[in-house]
Amino acid sequence: MVGGGPGSYVAGFHRKAAGLDEEIELVAGAFSSKPEKSYEMGKILCLNPERVYGSYKEMAQREAGLPDGEKLDFVSIVTPNYLHFPVAKEFILKGFNILCDKPLVMDLNEATELLKLVKKHDVLFAVTYNYTGYPMAKQAKEMIRQGMLGDILKVIVEYLCNYVPVNTDIKSIKKDFWRLDPARVGSSSCLADLGSHAENLSNYVTGLKIERVFADLKSFVSGCELENDATILLQYKNGAKGSITQSQVLTGEENNLNIRVYGSKASLAWYQNNPAVLSVRFLDKPEVLFKANNDYLEPLVKNSTRLPPGHPEAFIEAFANIYRNFARTVRARKYMEEAGPFDNDFPTIEDGYSGMNFIDKVIKSFKTSSWVDI
Amino acid sequence: MVGGGPGSYVAGFHRKAAGLDEEIELVAGAFSSKPEKSYEMGKILCLNPERVYGSYKEMAQREAGLPDGEKLDFVSIVTPNYLHFPVAKEFILKGFNILCDKPLVMDLNEATELLKLVKKHDVLFAVTYNYTGYPMAKQAKEMIRQGMLGDILKVIVEYLCNYVPVNTDIKSIKKDFWRLDPARVGSSSCLADLGSHAENLSNYVTGLKIERVFADLKSFVSGCELENDATILLQYKNGAKGSITQSQVLTGEENNLNIRVYGSKASLAWYQNNPAVLSVRFLDKPEVLFKANNDYLEPLVKNSTRLPPGHPEAFIEAFANIYRNFARTVRARKYMEEAGPFDNDFPTIEDGYSGMNFIDKVIKSFKTSSWVDI
Amino acid sequence: MVGGGPGSYVAGFHRKAAGLDEEIELVAGAFSSKPEKSYEMGKILCLNPERVYGSYKEMAQREAGLPDGEKLDFVSIVTPNYLHFPVAKEFILKGFNILCDKPLVMDLNEATELLKLVKKHDVLFAVTYNYTGYPMAKQAKEMIRQGMLGDILKVIVEYLCNYVPVNTDIKSIKKDFWRLDPARVGSSSCLADLGSHAENLSNYVTGLKIERVFADLKSFVSGCELENDATILLQYKNGAKGSITQSQVLTGEENNLNIRVYGSKASLAWYQNNPAVLSVRFLDKPEVLFKANNDYLEPLVKNSTRLPPGHPEAFIEAFANIYRNFARTVRARKYMEEAGPFDNDFPTIEDGYSGMNFIDKVIKSFKTSSWVDI
Amino acid sequence: MVGGGPGSYVAGFHRKAAGLDEEIELVAGAFSSKPEKSYEMGKILCLNPERVYGSYKEMAQREAGLPDGEKLDFVSIVTPNYLHFPVAKEFILKGFNILCDKPLVMDLNEATELLKLVKKHDVLFAVTYNYTGYPMAKQAKEMIRQGMLGDILKVIVEYLCNYVPVNTDIKSIKKDFWRLDPARVGSSSCLADLGSHAENLSNYVTGLKIERVFADLKSFVSGCELENDATILLQYKNGAKGSITQSQVLTGEENNLNIRVYGSKASLAWYQNNPAVLSVRFLDKPEVLFKANNDYLEPLVKNSTRLPPGHPEAFIEAFANIYRNFARTVRARKYMEEAGPFDNDFPTIEDGYSGMNFIDKVIKSFKTSSWVDI
Repeated sequence: MVGGGPGSYVAGFHRKAAGLDEEIELVAGAFSSKPEKSYEMGKILCLNPERVYGSYKEMAQREAGLPDGEKLDFVSIVTPNYLHFPVAKEFILKGFNILCDKPLVMDLNEATELLKLVKKHDVLFAVTYNYTGYPMAKQAKEMIRQGMLGDILKVIVEYLCNYVPVNTDIKSIKKDFWRLDPARVGSSSCLADLGSHAENLSNYVTGLKIERVFADLKSFVSGCELENDATILLQYKNGAKGSITQSQVLTGEENNLNIRVYGSKASLAWYQNNPAVLSVRFLDKPEVLFKANNDYLEPLVKNSTRLPPGHPEAFIEAFANIYRNFARTVRARKYMEEAGPFDNDFPTIEDGYSGMNFIDKVIKSFKTSSWVDI
Repeated sequence: MVGGGPGSYVAGFHRKAAGLDEEIELVAGAFSSKPEKSYEMGKILCLNPERVYGSYKEMAQREAGLPDGEKLDFVSIVTPNYLHFPVAKEFILKGFNILCDKPLVMDLNEATELLKLVKKHDVLFAVTYNYTGYPMAKQAKEMIRQGMLGDILKVIVEYLCNYVPVNTDIKSIKKDFWRLDPARVGSSSCLADLGSHAENLSNYVTGLKIERVFADLKSFVSGCELENDATILLQYKNGAKGSITQSQVLTGEENNLNIRVYGSKASLAWYQNNPAVLSVRFLDKPEVLFKANNDYLEPLVKNSTRLPPGHPEAFIEAFANIYRNFARTVRARKYMEEAGPFDNDFPTIEDGYSGMNFIDKVIKSFKTSSWVDI
Repeated sequence: MVGGGPGSYVAGFHRKAAGLDEEIELVAGAFSSKPEKSYEMGKILCLNPERVYGSYKEMAQREAGLPDGEKLDFVSIVTPNYLHFPVAKEFILKGFNILCDKPLVMDLNEATELLKLVKKHDVLFAVTYNYTGYPMAKQAKEMIRQGMLGDILKVIVEYLCNYVPVNTDIKSIKKDFWRLDPARVGSSSCLADLGSHAENLSNYVTGLKIERVFADLKSFVSGCELENDATILLQYKNGAKGSITQSQVLTGEENNLNIRVYGSKASLAWYQNNPAVLSVRFLDKPEVLFKANNDYLEPLVKNSTRLPPGHPEAFIEAFANIYRNFARTVRARKYMEEAGPFDNDFPTIEDGYSGMNFIDKVIKSFKTSSWVDI
Repeated sequence: MVGGGPGSYVAGFHRKAAGLDEEIELVAGAFSSKPEKSYEMGKILCLNPERVYGSYKEMAQREAGLPDGEKLDFVSIVTPNYLHFPVAKEFILKGFNILCDKPLVMDLNEATELLKLVKKHDVLFAVTYNYTGYPMAKQAKEMIRQGMLGDILKVIVEYLCNYVPVNTDIKSIKKDFWRLDPARVGSSSCLADLGSHAENLSNYVTGLKIERVFADLKSFVSGCELENDATILLQYKNGAKGSITQSQVLTGEENNLNIRVYGSKASLAWYQNNPAVLSVRFLDKPEVLFKANNDYLEPLVKNSTRLPPGHPEAFIEAFANIYRNFARTVRARKYMEEAGPFDNDFPTIEDGYSGMNFIDKVIKSFKTSSWVDI
């Protein structure tokens, strides 16, 4: 693991998710750019001190030299965004597989280069768009893939949050809040944080390609260069229309990511805040509520749950699905075994690239007040 | 009443709504452009046959000649859209007060002329944007008016329906379905039907002015000139952002009109499908659910309900609020009494005009792919 | 109408419900035991003063003498409970049909006598158990009647309210609150008010007979002779188990009447507070939500609604269904026409009697701490 | 760990829960009464084979002889019910702390003896009533403890499930289904499985003592000696009334444990199926929804969550709270440190005993058709 020093809550998600299925063990890390913090974290985690490093470069160097049996199967990157690219590059050049937090990198240039590197060095690469790890998002995907919704006409995605205070001075916020600092997150804040998840959810669930975007962005924090709020009109290649609404400043919203997809035969709706339910409505029939952990769900979905019906699973389990599937894919390749039928169900470097491209085009649309092709 | 012959369900709403509070009596009508159908309807309604007319012109002529005690207090217009203007004009010229179904008229030109006529002849004029008759929409309005939400940052309005079949030939639909026929509804279908309600709800609840719009429209019925689906980006004069999403083709949606308003101190959400509940979320506090018919609601709200808590009121009662308030305003003027403090709480000719102007600008934006000022 | 003077809100429900479908007209009344109040109410309602009476006896006397064309089709009784019996008796003896508010009468003796009178004089008699007028309660009934739930195993009914303050002196309450006064409501308060509705809902929806009851009652108002709270265990004739929980003192509950029925093949749940939805869950299938006003509902249900999907109907419309069906049955008999297929869908004297018998046995069970046969 | 061989899903919950916070490590086990299955499970879990045992007696013997640094801190018992007592006894006699699955044992005699043993040998003992590990159940408890609900008047607890098929032969079920076999579960099935959780939830949340019970039980499986369904009337020592409804045969119910508590000032409701929400309703105020992971919650609650608002936690996390608090209590005692302020927030041997006593009295009430004192 690179990043995730004391106090990083995102890294905590990653570790709990990785550990849940007893298939992945954390054995080495460079947890902070400050060596003493990295060592401190290693102690907290009871790691072998020899494999706790003062910098990611040192880690890449030393771990690459270990014999095959001891070598890391993959490296998990949970640093702030601006380090994703250099860290990933360092380890890819040494042949390591990578699991990287989202958004992939800082901008489209880095994304393009990273995509090339991954292809060239032929490593496995996952991006933790963790929300597509939820079982009922998978049920939605499967129902659409099988044509149960008919032709898709409209897609509405929202990612509504409230983690940026609007009536505060940007300077006081910035101190603690790297997400609003262009130097650390790149060309966007809300889009990078939320929009990339929303775009990934649309792609994953609908299987449709976004063709064009028109965007209206806004910073509601005075002095803040980066947007906190965005509404994006979508036109899909198949003729469907859609929108993504996302925001960091909506009082009362608690990580409210949701998607509604309307087809000619049926429609569906899924909300991350109530993740075990998928509402499906067919023409001239009553609404149907699919619930997680039941036998009537699709095989892809049942493969992604661990408990019986009525025993709710949630965020950590969804996250764990990404880790587990990636780890199984890594293992299958390592031992040249055949992977399980659903082991490739995790977001890849291409999905990460797609997110960066989307952000790039959304910003372009806003700056030019015009539709921009994806 | 003009319009509302046998089989018109909208007219049925109007009559039940008008009759609910035992303050309004239907005494005359021209119910159809076919005289025999009008007479038939008069019989069904047990009206005095002398006051059932074969045409609205005949009705206007004869009713205008009645002595003051017998004369109609106001005329209710429930015809298809293309007749709103000529019928209203005919009666306004004879000095009658008018209550007219929405959208006001066919296009902005008619709206402009009608607004002038109403001003010149100094008649009272209501438009049945019935959804703002719901008590909890009024609670939302009052809380915002009193500043409980702080500065408004974002407004999201949706009006999602499913009454146009997408896989049918336009000709077979049109026969029964005047709402898709430009000759009868004017320059828009979905916007006229749904968008005008959504715009009115935003105006009524938030009290904010829409400054600019950017729209993406779509017809999902092959051969249909008019749009069935629209997503409209909004910029408000106060700097808030927003959107209106509306559609006639969303499988499973049953008249799903809803509004969410986000302010710097609190946010609120109201859904017409669950009309007795208003969700309010304050910064750093738990969500609060205001419920209709309770003592803790604002006076404007309590004035609009008839039953104790837990005895649900719904569509007819909301519609009745528009009728009742308008009728009381008419009566107060007639008898030169002071109107009650909330009697002016109904949509007026200005609101009707605002809706037509909004539709006009939305279409312009779509045709030019650009932001258009309201 | 007998009862329903100025300030009676229950009578207001009755009048709005009766008037909704334009099939019933209020033409005469004795609205209060105080003649001047009765006359005042007659004026408010714009009735012909000759048919507004100072007492129900005077009304029965004079109305019975009117010629057939003018005579009342039925009498609606909306007095406090203790007058139901004498008023009904007076009018039955003169051959009038009766619609009476619930509970039927004060105790089982009165109920037995009234049942005999109705049979002997062969009048039509309805009891306004208004909650079984809701369309989705009818959908529940139809699904069970058709065997879609399989064998019924368990029935859970609740009627949870909060209209009696617990920390107040009984004397100060009683002054305004006849519902706690044995002289005016009979042998029970909560059971008469709420329990009879709950029992009727169980009977109507399930079609099952209750065989035995065991009850625990409680007064939470110091000095109050009558119970405010009851939990009743039920054993049904078919072997099913069940319970009715009801209360007047549950903080926050707003007229929360609900029923859940569990069968070997499926189960269903309906809540009066959200009346347009019926949840049905089948073995090994996802939950299904039936919604009011849709085409897929049973004919009995569609016969009971007036608006299109998504246009919510509620309390008044449910109440109106009782009035309308009873009025149509009265009319069919009067003109010796065949009644419509669903016109007999209203609660009768037998249902009213059943309620009084249930209350009687519940009290007996509580007093003896033993199971009592119904 | 004792019990939890291949295929035991309950043991899987335990291991995931124990591992979640990286504070507990599984180091030894006797996973099955069949030695080869135990060894197989040890391999799956990558345990040191020397600490995987063929029987719990062997395990107790050998582990007791290990030096202090290596000795187990506590033993987790996840066997079928009939082994809880002998296994616990074996380890208690050797001085081990115990965490035991619920229900505590087979009957009240065993419970009484076990309670004595625990006292005598002064070991720490936890029972995994895991549902009281949910944060919002803790919020409910805290609000009641602080008097925010006023005097408690009524408590309604339900535990509704559907894991026993009603139309099958008991013999074919029994083969796979030890929960219906008296030899393995004791004197009750549904009560042991579900009722003990319900009783514990009532005790934990309300802090009230149940004084008397009256019960109606039923087996819906032909040939089944043990009940599948129970409704229990409760009288609390403080004068409150209540009920527990529980069942194994309710079609469509998915582990639906819920509690509603009504007080003179406020009431609350919590549902395990939607565990992150606690509804609270105050007199004359709107309903309030407390949501997990927010800053406004009580310290006890915040101590029990791991993620930010809107990142749902669920079953595993609730279970983990029991494990974590017990483990911290064990550790504090071991190192003679002061325990954290909330470390004692786990169900103890007394809670386990209380559950067995409750079951005993419920069965007695049913057999005698009378109220039985607790």
